[in-house]
Amino acid sequence: MTAARRILVTGATGFIGRHALAPLRDLGFEVHAVARAIPGAPPEDAAARAGVQWHEADLLAPGAARALIQAARPTHLLHFAWYAEHGKFWDSPRNLDWLAATLALLRDFAEAGGERFVGAGTCAEYDWSGTAQENRFDEGSTPLRPSHLYGAAKASAFLTGSLLAKNAGVAFAWGRIFHLFGPGEPAARIVPALIRAHLLGEKLDCGSGTQARDFLPASAIGDAFARLCASDVRGAVNIGSGRETRLTELSAILSGLIGNQGDVRFGALAGATPERLVPLIRRLTAEVGWTPPETLEEGLRKTVEWWKSRARETRRD
Amino acid sequence: MTAARRILVTGATGFIGRHALAPLRDLGFEVHAVARAIPGAPPEDAAARAGVQWHEADLLAPGAARALIQAARPTHLLHFAWYAEHGKFWDSPRNLDWLAATLALLRDFAEAGGERFVGAGTCAEYDWSGTAQENRFDEGSTPLRPSHLYGAAKASAFLTGSLLAKNAGVAFAWGRIFHLFGPGEPAARIVPALIRAHLLGEKLDCGSGTQARDFLPASAIGDAFARLCASDVRGAVNIGSGRETRLTELSAILSGLIGNQGDVRFGALAGATPERLVPLIRRLTAEVGWTPPETLEEGLRKTVEWWKSRARETRRD
Repeated sequence: MTAARRILVTGATGFIGRHALAPLRDLGFEVHAVARAIPGAPPEDAAARAGVQWHEADLLAPGAARALIQAARPTHLLHFAWYAEHGKFWDSPRNLDWLAATLALLRDFAEAGGERFVGAGTCAEYDWSGTAQENRFDEGSTPLRPSHLYGAAKASAFLTGSLLAKNAGVAFAWGRIFHLFGPGEPAARIVPALIRAHLLGEKLDCGSGTQARDFLPASAIGDAFARLCASDVRGAVNIGSGRETRLTELSAILSGLIGNQGDVRFGALAGATPERLVPLIRRLTAEVGWTPPETLEEGLRKTVEWWKSRARETRRD
Repeated sequence: MTAARRILVTGATGFIGRHALAPLRDLGFEVHAVARAIPGAPPEDAAARAGVQWHEADLLAPGAARALIQAARPTHLLHFAWYAEHGKFWDSPRNLDWLAATLALLRDFAEAGGERFVGAGTCAEYDWSGTAQENRFDEGSTPLRPSHLYGAAKASAFLTGSLLAKNAGVAFAWGRIFHLFGPGEPAARIVPALIRAHLLGEKLDCGSGTQARDFLPASAIGDAFARLCASDVRGAVNIGSGRETRLTELSAILSGLIGNQGDVRFGALAGATPERLVPLIRRLTAEVGWTPPETLEEGLRKTVEWWKSRARETRRD
């Protein structure tokens, strides 16, 4: 019998982190989770959280990471915690605090004999200035040239964390997240905005809609990170489905699922977002051995159901 | 008359920083310099230091940068301070402390209304794994892929510092230093080792000697940084002479200058250092408008003189 693999998950109540707990448990990990304040589990998370041992800590407080690691003694660490407030996180100086906290956490983990660290990166680490054809990001060859402080701080955590881990004999992997959606997403983001427009038959002004993105449900991303933790793969790994969807197509799928038509006006807004931002996912599929557990349509259907149930609850209020 | 440009130089007693003071003064800056402990100026630095206002601070101490900036009120900041102990700096965790201190310094400078920040980067930020032909590093296209913690922390300071400065409206430039030499360099490094071998007629085992590098005297690098500070150029700028010299050629030049032959055995050591590590310097020459103030031979001659004077002093002891 091999020694128990004990994993500590930071940001474990977050939009993605909550979805990594059950897959990690199913992969044989003893799961420890950390959050600033442990909330009462909403009913839909109760099964996912079964058997998880919770720790309360503010990773930005000096010494907190060290105490946490001494308490949980993890062999593995899956680090999602970061500042992520919608609309504000792109250029907030808080990214600097999380860069420092991430490196301190890794250092404390290494000093305590930790074996494997997996961090949450972002497609915003890459150079987005290429042509549409070039914007299929490859972990090995696409330059890191972030346009916002968020991507810069994440790229810095990757670069410095990689070498810090290497010197300490800790295996280091870094999952770069692309476009995500799912129940609980802020209403102003593109998938909820489209769902609400179709559900309610409302008007929504959009950019051209021709932009191609790779959308994954947050639950699938949590699952992919769990597999990355259980694997021996090191370095950066793009997290995506391998399927490109234009925003116009996404809107059409949602309209079909909902059986209703919003007044979605593509082309109404001038937009300067890149035409294509998609990952090459050879490392994830061939090396980690992961494939999405559900189709895009299935993930969108669940998200639509969630918004419908919220609408019902709102009406009952 | 324009408002006075007041520059604060960190690491101002260091191997390069000491050489930036006089050129900055000559370019019209009011020069403020910071060091952990202000030493008595050695005689050869007295002229360079004329008119410089000194501040004593340990930039790793919490709050020290803020107090320093409040005292000096600089419009410009030239940041050399970093951990640089020969043989140890490549993979020391102290690089993390200097990454954090650099970002904190920039943040404090921006909050105090600073206008322009120039930092000292390194060729070790780049990917060194290319072929000899590819290893001519271009600021815009060569990937940042450091092999050591030092390069990773410097690249992180560049990436995160660039965006932090951009958001705060501070002009940000980053000079990437290549190979340097000069009086006072640790004896174990390649130029002093070759000089001593030739001066003393001693045996020195070396690698193949075919490796091409771009060598600049530390005094020229200080001068280049002063010009970069006075310019409007933003982003990364390689600091080099544009001349490639193989180690065998370097040894031959030194042997000629010294008029003596050491027993330098190229090929005696197996080495895995890249065959070529040289910068493209179009930005430095065409945009900043800098050219080296002296030839490689002249810089080497001064360094040889310094080692000769040291040998005389040693004999007098």
